[in-house]
Amino acid sequence: MRKFDETIQRIQKIDFSLAKATQRRLDNLTKPLGSLGRLEELAKQIVEITKKERPSLKKKVIFTMAGDHGVTEEGVSAYPKEVTPQMVYNFMAGGAGINVLARHVGARVIVVDMGVACDLKEHNDLVIKKVGYGTRNMAKGSSMTKEEALKALEGGIEAFEEEFVKGMDIAGTGDMGIGNTTPSSAIASVLTGRKVEDVTGRGTGVDDKAFAGKVAIIRKAIEVNKPDAKDPIDVLAKVGGFEIGGIAGLILAASANRVPVVIDGFISGAAALLAYKLEPKTKEYMIAAHQSVERGHRIILEHIGLKPLLDLDLRLGEGTGAALGISIAEAAVKILTQMASFKDAGVSERVKK
Amino acid sequence: MRKFDETIQRIQKIDFSLAKATQRRLDNLTKPLGSLGRLEELAKQIVEITKKERPSLKKKVIFTMAGDHGVTEEGVSAYPKEVTPQMVYNFMAGGAGINVLARHVGARVIVVDMGVACDLKEHNDLVIKKVGYGTRNMAKGSSMTKEEALKALEGGIEAFEEEFVKGMDIAGTGDMGIGNTTPSSAIASVLTGRKVEDVTGRGTGVDDKAFAGKVAIIRKAIEVNKPDAKDPIDVLAKVGGFEIGGIAGLILAASANRVPVVIDGFISGAAALLAYKLEPKTKEYMIAAHQSVERGHRIILEHIGLKPLLDLDLRLGEGTGAALGISIAEAAVKILTQMASFKDAGVSERVKK
Repeated sequence: MRKFDETIQRIQKIDFSLAKATQRRLDNLTKPLGSLGRLEELAKQIVEITKKERPSLKKKVIFTMAGDHGVTEEGVSAYPKEVTPQMVYNFMAGGAGINVLARHVGARVIVVDMGVACDLKEHNDLVIKKVGYGTRNMAKGSSMTKEEALKALEGGIEAFEEEFVKGMDIAGTGDMGIGNTTPSSAIASVLTGRKVEDVTGRGTGVDDKAFAGKVAIIRKAIEVNKPDAKDPIDVLAKVGGFEIGGIAGLILAASANRVPVVIDGFISGAAALLAYKLEPKTKEYMIAAHQSVERGHRIILEHIGLKPLLDLDLRLGEGTGAALGISIAEAAVKILTQMASFKDAGVSERVKK
Repeated sequence: MRKFDETIQRIQKIDFSLAKATQRRLDNLTKPLGSLGRLEELAKQIVEITKKERPSLKKKVIFTMAGDHGVTEEGVSAYPKEVTPQMVYNFMAGGAGINVLARHVGARVIVVDMGVACDLKEHNDLVIKKVGYGTRNMAKGSSMTKEEALKALEGGIEAFEEEFVKGMDIAGTGDMGIGNTTPSSAIASVLTGRKVEDVTGRGTGVDDKAFAGKVAIIRKAIEVNKPDAKDPIDVLAKVGGFEIGGIAGLILAASANRVPVVIDGFISGAAALLAYKLEPKTKEYMIAAHQSVERGHRIILEHIGLKPLLDLDLRLGEGTGAALGISIAEAAVKILTQMASFKDAGVSERVKK
């Protein structure tokens, strides 16, 4: 059985066997019932995912997956495509947004070359799972073959598992790829059934004319390729990207290994949608970090049924939102594991009526 | 001149003299223009407050101000009032929500006894600024005298300044006081001009009957005392609380000393409203941490003109929301100070058209 199928089969349904005990613990902590709102919900989710009554999120890893996109030749991005490898080197040097925020929350950043259009210099924090030197231009035909789509998914699974054996309590997703809001909008449109213009935003900041062109290119890509909405791998192959497939694989692997996975913004959202369509059980393992400015993101999250933790007008990607989300998740778990109970602290409980 | 007046006079208007240089720095960092949204706004605000081009938020202090409320004899809270001192001891032992979250974000917690209804045991992290042994029952007359109101404000100012001399880069507000959503709603109603029922919530969780009673008590307190909406000290004296005055004083002192101050939830919001009415310039020094579940909180924030950073359904108080907000503020500053520029990282800029 190939790695992809084996991983999907290992994903278990959350059984909520610890739900009652966790609720009891939360209700006995020295605070009014339910007064820590979403932190309490998050703590419960992480207990169920990890099957640990007192989980700890010490080892945090953010995977920033990089790939190039043939569709950039249509002028869909405000930045030239050489920025993809340049930013990978920036990640290696520790100077990018994700490096700053990952350090802030105590997370490691692993950069995965899923399909950058050039060979990258070796580096300790760079994992090579290159499926190709950028996708083909989806406006003219399929972005990749079905076999390449499966390889992208498996590259993400492998990248996860190679880190998982070293120890990992929580994973975050991230992306880097000039042009990658274009395939993400295409995936969102096909898999949610919404119009292209409803799920297309301005990416890194194209102007009105370029935006209209971007919508037209996405429509054309869908018309030319006719992706089958019932077959997520067909959608990934025809209008996807290597790093998007890699992130979807990462989410499948995290779910299979019962590791909570914090989903970054729009590109990660498109990947999460693919993972969800491949195996709906993955939803319970996902934590949506934030609501991106990209308009399609809200539609994706609603379609999966995820509620973002943060809404800070971010649209950088890289895993920057995931980093902040990981910190909230860790705060939630610490509430559960470190707060005193009414009994321990000698605090009176509410007046029974 | 008394400390209160001297502090108010020292509060300077933000002059935005560093705005252009900060914007230029942000725009040269390796990310699409404006793509870190509210983190960029926050970084700019902190530069203007501190007048430092490259601020650092290493020394973080959360002040949790405690006080008791005579109005609890009207049955407005789900918890007995002995919980106030019990929770202070819980803070000292490090077992409360605020302790867990402050540790998570690397902040110290200073607990200030502004007016707990008993004498508390000495402790290193406990500052005594006791104005009285709980307020009087505002449903029957003024909560405190005008002189006590000024003493509460000055207690908060002193608590801030005693820590400030030791070094402080950012302050957070917090509260503890059984019954204190009741005076907070009264303050919010008087100072925003909104109806009592629009700004009253369920506090720590009273039932329908007790909620109706709470609204009636607040209305009665306002009728009996006739606080003058144009005189914030009169409002604090007649329907306020010692810890609410202390938090308002803390906000005045932080503003006077150009220290960003992260405002917690509803009770801190009522205090922020008092500080804002006493001196509107304080607004620029405030960072609203989160949107509380307490319905009056949104009205307070809109009235001042603050947009909360987080919306996590919290309603615990103590400074728990402020702790999470402080971490976001620190992340924002690190973006400004630690990210590489396009030039430094050798990354191509956007295509000029």
